[in-house]
Amino acid sequence: MITGEHTMADGAAMRRALELATRGPASGVNPRVGCVILSPHGDVLAEGWHRGAGTAHAEVDALSKLAPGAAQGATAVVTLEPCNHTGRTGPCAVALIDAGIARVVYAVADPGDHSAGGADRLRSAGIEVTAGVLADEAEAFLDDWLFAARHRRPRVTMKWAASLDGRAAASDGSSRWITGQQARADAHRRRAAADAIAVGTGTVLADDPSLTARTSAGELLDAQPVPVVFGRRPIPADAAVTRHPHAPITLRGADLTGDLRELQRRGIRSLFVEGGPTLASAFLAAGLVDELLVYVAPMLLGGPRVAVGDLGVASIAEARHFDFAAFERLGDDLLVVARPIAIRPPARSTTDTDDAASSSTSVKEGN
Amino acid sequence: MITGEHTMADGAAMRRALELATRGPASGVNPRVGCVILSPHGDVLAEGWHRGAGTAHAEVDALSKLAPGAAQGATAVVTLEPCNHTGRTGPCAVALIDAGIARVVYAVADPGDHSAGGADRLRSAGIEVTAGVLADEAEAFLDDWLFAARHRRPRVTMKWAASLDGRAAASDGSSRWITGQQARADAHRRRAAADAIAVGTGTVLADDPSLTARTSAGELLDAQPVPVVFGRRPIPADAAVTRHPHAPITLRGADLTGDLRELQRRGIRSLFVEGGPTLASAFLAAGLVDELLVYVAPMLLGGPRVAVGDLGVASIAEARHFDFAAFERLGDDLLVVARPIAIRPPARSTTDTDDAASSSTSVKEGN
Repeated sequence: MITGEHTMADGAAMRRALELATRGPASGVNPRVGCVILSPHGDVLAEGWHRGAGTAHAEVDALSKLAPGAAQGATAVVTLEPCNHTGRTGPCAVALIDAGIARVVYAVADPGDHSAGGADRLRSAGIEVTAGVLADEAEAFLDDWLFAARHRRPRVTMKWAASLDGRAAASDGSSRWITGQQARADAHRRRAAADAIAVGTGTVLADDPSLTARTSAGELLDAQPVPVVFGRRPIPADAAVTRHPHAPITLRGADLTGDLRELQRRGIRSLFVEGGPTLASAFLAAGLVDELLVYVAPMLLGGPRVAVGDLGVASIAEARHFDFAAFERLGDDLLVVARPIAIRPPARSTTDTDDAASSSTSVKEGN
Repeated sequence: MITGEHTMADGAAMRRALELATRGPASGVNPRVGCVILSPHGDVLAEGWHRGAGTAHAEVDALSKLAPGAAQGATAVVTLEPCNHTGRTGPCAVALIDAGIARVVYAVADPGDHSAGGADRLRSAGIEVTAGVLADEAEAFLDDWLFAARHRRPRVTMKWAASLDGRAAASDGSSRWITGQQARADAHRRRAAADAIAVGTGTVLADDPSLTARTSAGELLDAQPVPVVFGRRPIPADAAVTRHPHAPITLRGADLTGDLRELQRRGIRSLFVEGGPTLASAFLAAGLVDELLVYVAPMLLGGPRVAVGDLGVASIAEARHFDFAAFERLGDDLLVVARPIAIRPPARSTTDTDDAASSSTSVKEGN
């Protein structure tokens, strides 16, 4: 829903601002934002975009291209609500006010804890504010960043590969390979699309995974997720993960909510949780999984090595419910995509509240 | 492949013979068979079909409609190779020879232990024999009976319902309902299509199932599978299964191969194995499952109550391999149909060999 007046020129300028936004870096703490400054007649006066943390925000970048006073009475069209936050740069709302901007048009509200409130500040300064222009496009463009900002954690995708009877390995621990080449390639492509990939220390000690995203031939894909290891045991100095293109992040796993918040603060918007069963069970038990990817192989293994351990579900009434979102045949295997029926509402609580709730979200070590 | 000469009239007569066969009973020890007697000019002289164990076979039924000597020089077209077995009736091969039949045309060879060899006996008597006319149609028509006769056991379909993490129940044993109404109705329709339904004594004692095939409203479907209970513990006198429309068959489960042979001798061509996990694991470990139906619900349960227990698979190299044959969305649930990649070749061994092989196919009691 659009609030406030808007013109054809606003829509065209917003589309251009979205194009400009794509020039920024796709990952990191800050969102990709674009800005177009329009004259009162609708002519483009300047364009700007954000180039990453520590550099000018899109609005300031656009204003910097104008002579002093040239933005007087102009309209700033920006993909995200101008920030109200003094970080490494000053608040954009203040920069727009100081430049004499008369109107601000934006697509999506800023959900940030500290940066929100820019629209109110602009209105208080007598600036006309219109929100929601091309909001759907901007929402889709900023999807992962907005999710992380609203939930104060990365979007969590959990993946496991299992036999049709739910085992992640045979009795002796052997699991190469449960799924075939097509399923494994699909999982690597999805690894590459995530900002970070997580395993427990038990998996590092047992399997020594490289946590890289690779082609079937074993070559590194262009994008590599940051490796994250949860648990209290130290990572061996010669572990494969220490040779990952990105330095591993280690987290204790005693407070998953707090750990995820820490990852979000570091600019991790999407986390691919690969296991093992202990870490998977802890994330699931804490309700911190937004999407499940289960690669099901047409085999039976039996035995004790289940893909998912205990979830604290005592009776059928306490089952964790999902929706099947998609099924995909991958060679001989089946990929099942499932999403929790009720994602918990965005937590806007304080850190204290998070900590109080964290007693049920600890990770026990092991594989 | 058709062996021997055949005419257009043979094909038309075979199609008619298949129609006649459908008049017989669809279950029981004997197959449904039809027969048409043709004059040397291709005119239909008589028709016959088999009405069930203890009654005349199709060939004898057809011959009985002719005056003595009227079949002299005629052609008998029959859907199954004429038997060479003296049971409650005499061998059909001999009846055809005695009637003066000059040619016999059949669709499918008789795989029976005692009844096969009819074609050889006919040829030895100087009768011209053609095999394989409309063989595909006859094979499909006699599918379950031929499977049971060739493998000397019923075709075994195993069904279970499980959460996405492979659990058949929550930790406290509660499992109603893991799957939704559509999945349960599908399973009941498939129960009704089987000659028999099997559970272990553990399931009888724990769940007291009725083992009937019912509509969603709880009404009995027209066809009801014979209940079979495997295990050593006695069935309680007031168990629901004792009120089943068919009297339960109880088998000890110490020799599954022998038990299945016994069911085949009693005319059970298809067996629907419903569990529990102990019985399911025993059938799977013994390689006695021809089709898996796994109803997967979009929920996670965790905990110890896996749908399939131990299968004696120590390493991934020993995994039991299947092919996914079909996926079907049923309401919120997913039905996965899987078939073993290598069905064991038809055993034409003696009973002694079967008994020797049975040490690994015993069922332990429990649920």
